[in-house]
Amino acid sequence: MMDYTIFGESHGPAVGVLLRDVPPGLPVDEEFICRQLLRRAPQDPLSTARHEPDQVEVLSGVYQGVTTGMPVCLLLRNRDVRSADYDALRHTPRPSHADYTAWVQSGGRNDPRGGGAFSGRLTAPLVAAGALAKNWLSLQDIEVNAQVIDENALRQRAEAARQTGDSVGGQVRCIVTGLPAGWGGPDWRETVESEIARHVFAIPGVKAVAFGAGEELAALRGSQANDPWRTDGRRVWSVTNHSGGINGGITNGMPVEFTVTFRPTPSIAQPQETIDLETMTNTKITIGGRHDACIALRAPVVVESAAALALWRLKGADGGGELDDLRGQLD
Amino acid sequence: MMDYTIFGESHGPAVGVLLRDVPPGLPVDEEFICRQLLRRAPQDPLSTARHEPDQVEVLSGVYQGVTTGMPVCLLLRNRDVRSADYDALRHTPRPSHADYTAWVQSGGRNDPRGGGAFSGRLTAPLVAAGALAKNWLSLQDIEVNAQVIDENALRQRAEAARQTGDSVGGQVRCIVTGLPAGWGGPDWRETVESEIARHVFAIPGVKAVAFGAGEELAALRGSQANDPWRTDGRRVWSVTNHSGGINGGITNGMPVEFTVTFRPTPSIAQPQETIDLETMTNTKITIGGRHDACIALRAPVVVESAAALALWRLKGADGGGELDDLRGQLD
Amino acid sequence: MMDYTIFGESHGPAVGVLLRDVPPGLPVDEEFICRQLLRRAPQDPLSTARHEPDQVEVLSGVYQGVTTGMPVCLLLRNRDVRSADYDALRHTPRPSHADYTAWVQSGGRNDPRGGGAFSGRLTAPLVAAGALAKNWLSLQDIEVNAQVIDENALRQRAEAARQTGDSVGGQVRCIVTGLPAGWGGPDWRETVESEIARHVFAIPGVKAVAFGAGEELAALRGSQANDPWRTDGRRVWSVTNHSGGINGGITNGMPVEFTVTFRPTPSIAQPQETIDLETMTNTKITIGGRHDACIALRAPVVVESAAALALWRLKGADGGGELDDLRGQLD
Amino acid sequence: MMDYTIFGESHGPAVGVLLRDVPPGLPVDEEFICRQLLRRAPQDPLSTARHEPDQVEVLSGVYQGVTTGMPVCLLLRNRDVRSADYDALRHTPRPSHADYTAWVQSGGRNDPRGGGAFSGRLTAPLVAAGALAKNWLSLQDIEVNAQVIDENALRQRAEAARQTGDSVGGQVRCIVTGLPAGWGGPDWRETVESEIARHVFAIPGVKAVAFGAGEELAALRGSQANDPWRTDGRRVWSVTNHSGGINGGITNGMPVEFTVTFRPTPSIAQPQETIDLETMTNTKITIGGRHDACIALRAPVVVESAAALALWRLKGADGGGELDDLRGQLD
Repeated sequence: MMDYTIFGESHGPAVGVLLRDVPPGLPVDEEFICRQLLRRAPQDPLSTARHEPDQVEVLSGVYQGVTTGMPVCLLLRNRDVRSADYDALRHTPRPSHADYTAWVQSGGRNDPRGGGAFSGRLTAPLVAAGALAKNWLSLQDIEVNAQVIDENALRQRAEAARQTGDSVGGQVRCIVTGLPAGWGGPDWRETVESEIARHVFAIPGVKAVAFGAGEELAALRGSQANDPWRTDGRRVWSVTNHSGGINGGITNGMPVEFTVTFRPTPSIAQPQETIDLETMTNTKITIGGRHDACIALRAPVVVESAAALALWRLKGADGGGELDDLRGQLD
Repeated sequence: MMDYTIFGESHGPAVGVLLRDVPPGLPVDEEFICRQLLRRAPQDPLSTARHEPDQVEVLSGVYQGVTTGMPVCLLLRNRDVRSADYDALRHTPRPSHADYTAWVQSGGRNDPRGGGAFSGRLTAPLVAAGALAKNWLSLQDIEVNAQVIDENALRQRAEAARQTGDSVGGQVRCIVTGLPAGWGGPDWRETVESEIARHVFAIPGVKAVAFGAGEELAALRGSQANDPWRTDGRRVWSVTNHSGGINGGITNGMPVEFTVTFRPTPSIAQPQETIDLETMTNTKITIGGRHDACIALRAPVVVESAAALALWRLKGADGGGELDDLRGQLD
Repeated sequence: MMDYTIFGESHGPAVGVLLRDVPPGLPVDEEFICRQLLRRAPQDPLSTARHEPDQVEVLSGVYQGVTTGMPVCLLLRNRDVRSADYDALRHTPRPSHADYTAWVQSGGRNDPRGGGAFSGRLTAPLVAAGALAKNWLSLQDIEVNAQVIDENALRQRAEAARQTGDSVGGQVRCIVTGLPAGWGGPDWRETVESEIARHVFAIPGVKAVAFGAGEELAALRGSQANDPWRTDGRRVWSVTNHSGGINGGITNGMPVEFTVTFRPTPSIAQPQETIDLETMTNTKITIGGRHDACIALRAPVVVESAAALALWRLKGADGGGELDDLRGQLD
Repeated sequence: MMDYTIFGESHGPAVGVLLRDVPPGLPVDEEFICRQLLRRAPQDPLSTARHEPDQVEVLSGVYQGVTTGMPVCLLLRNRDVRSADYDALRHTPRPSHADYTAWVQSGGRNDPRGGGAFSGRLTAPLVAAGALAKNWLSLQDIEVNAQVIDENALRQRAEAARQTGDSVGGQVRCIVTGLPAGWGGPDWRETVESEIARHVFAIPGVKAVAFGAGEELAALRGSQANDPWRTDGRRVWSVTNHSGGINGGITNGMPVEFTVTFRPTPSIAQPQETIDLETMTNTKITIGGRHDACIALRAPVVVESAAALALWRLKGADGGGELDDLRGQLD
């Protein structure tokens, strides 16, 4: 089953990703990877002022433009590094950021520069890996598209917040079309919801994932929420899609849809209460550095990437031979 | 790392669970397992009329009342089996149930009796395994408690729906107290949110999982959502807990809190539109069998079990030696 | 990827195996499983006097005689249990048996009755799982055959040893025919040798695994050891098979061959030196119970099972689609 | 559990390794890594004439000289690359090398330059990762030492072979001292033999792995092979170590010992029979490039690395808390 590991720190020499069990023969389109990285890059006053050219280096697993089946290592060098911004914060963890938990988990060994491995910078290699996953999916006519919910309104809210040194949360809706029925399963290692959620919750700032009609389902009756099946004698579909394309943890042939909630960026310019870990006393901090007023605005491509990687893994876990036979019978 | 696999079908000989990498020396309290199973058992007119005594049989891995470190197999025989209820539905998948997807995924090999491996019956071994996980957590003074949100109102809605052959959705809130800071990590295989979500989304009917303030975070500003750190010189806590006890995928010492949304039970007594898979034509079904009007009402112990198993796995992945040293320094 | 876990203890209620990610549609032939179990059962004076009927119970994952794709649980009840034989040995570990190591590993929580989870009894569910694996392989015209090396001579040595309360070691040669080229890979998680060795070394008493010409390769020159490629324009083969059908961790289309060395059964009737773990003093034991004079004699079906399960996993890890195309080009 | 993945190709931009679940606080001694790499480097006329400076670059997971707990990426750039040597061999696979199997497995997508991902060059990052593993083990007073068996005799055989354009096989014996009893388990995922064998068989050219007395055990009686336990009231040991320090898949406190058999280097300068994959006809090749006359001579540090990584994983899978208590009781 395809597997990937993101590595690197915000202010270390590089960030990157290693993918394993990539099937041989997948074209690797570096220009496509770059375009995806550009969608993630900060491009306006609402985003961090840090700028990285995000040139991806393919270190392994690709020969003559296609994958060989061996591990693929993609590297992005860090260049615009300013460690000094963070030194003062070594012992004063930023509220709702990972500073305190990384410090505890690592026994004080964590790299504190710019959040180290917990920085949003790590979403760059995620997007690079996601570009490969989207390539793989598109060969099967599967498309993953995410967009900010109410983007214009959110931009206005973010701009207003930015002017007071504040930040805002937001939501992204992701829709996967072209998925055949039959991917996934009921086990906790394989439900489509489990696998997608697992990858999406690893995006910094994500706090909720909801499939189909999501939390609204709590207020509905079965007669309202159920998605009736229909057929024209060849294809099968449901009239509505409150289930978000998944029943019993398995794709049902309808688009897989889910909503991702991002918290407001925890790094805000206003003074905040925190503690000093050396003296174990209460104190205040004001965060410098370069931060987004709303991470949700740059997040669609990141959500797409996490979802594409999750789906790639699901399909890798599934032989699918029988499926083709079955579909043959239906046609 | 502790691992578990649920097996069995609703109307097969048994359901059960096999746990691996259970540490030796964990007391196995069969009475406690039974009490947890009772919390899940249908007990009122809103629940299925199917009654199973849920006597758990410990087949392996336990000697003289404690675990040995070898795989633990827990078995629950099925007794109140009425396969005939389902035969008519073999080729007419129930809307929003797993009938169609299980059929596609298995190439038509799935066990259709009572939903087979997709039945709510499979939550019984999940609860049995969860009882062990809760035992393990309680040795470390960690408690997992879930309850239905607005239970009385939901019971009334469910009763009203039942009378018209309908069902309702609902929500469960789960709170884990006593967790130390430092469990989890930023990788998609290890964030606390990822691991909990993965297990909770495998509970039939779950469609959304939200941590801390969840979807409300989308509307908040950073200055409102951030949880300021405080200390009394010994302990560390946050004034609010909008993060749900998790920062950067790692526990922060505050209670881990999350909300689970259950869809309305798809099995309703009203006639519904569906298809006939043999003739590939549109048709209608009315579902017989025995079903809950609201699965959320019996779900708290199931959610607790999934969360407890997820947390057990997280800690198993974490040595923690360094952690103890660190906490020693802080004290 | 197919996965299996063996559970149970020698003198507990049952032994069994749970298989996951079994593809749907595999016929489960209980008579074939029983025949395999019979090959493993003790049948002559050289084998243990313990007799188990070895009736396998299919608890899950099979419907109308074929697998559904859901976990398959196979159970074998223990019946001929005599725990009293072992009580005296609780604190005097048998030399070269797992008594001491199981005790240390479990912190004294291990089930000591008949070796608990370390008993040769656990090879019964391994053979039951192996029967499914062999079924799966035979659908692709792959056969796994093992036999004792110099069986007659070994029987004579074993008989001579038995008369003095002693035991003997032995070797088994396993040959897998019909394997296509292209299974496996160079990574430590996927070389054919790695995967086979991993499963074979988990058979009690195995101490060496050698592929192809094995240890003899140390004394050969490259010009002697290399296997020259030949073709008739359609098929590819090698003139010799010193590589045991594997190059670079990948099958090359020749039979996969390996030799397994079993140590002499550690349970012998002669008095032996050991220690008393309670008093931490030196002492002697004479082992009662029922034991084989040579486990290698009953081992071929066990080795076949381990190899078949390993190969099933390898193929499960490999999509193989491209492979078919390639072979199509060659034909 | 610690996990590592080696990546890169012989004549690509770099080779490297990514380690996950490395505990925080492990010192990373780049000089020690370099010394280990030097032990592997070709240094005499019996080894390949290719020379790489083997400067390791630490890309992630290390801060102020110690690990942070985040993934550690170690990179070694390829510099002495001469791809032209191999172009002629694209369609004429070298006998007993991975050329044919890599081509089949990848559907013809493999990187053929210098054996691509199947080259001995990939043992350089293995040794770099192994250096970290040895660091980790040495903190617990565990040492891993391997040496060529009969090294002087082997050097003479290798020199004689080299002069006729031939190669020779050889054996390496590895001994791990300082291991406590209780690591490992009986399951195929966790026996000490399984885990070590799995990693060692992934070293190119390894064809047999034998623990303790290995294949000689086949000829012994139980009364000869058994290792009697002894104690002085505090410590426990066995008088002999035919079991190679492992009983029931678990370390017993004696040194873990095993012998690794390397085949003769398949790349020899003599003309050999092979096939042309384009024309599907028989042909001959004479291999150019730069090759060792005996890979076993440079292999000890590679075997040590594989063993050290295997043991690191085993311990990572084991909580060990109970163990400490037990040992406390014995002392």
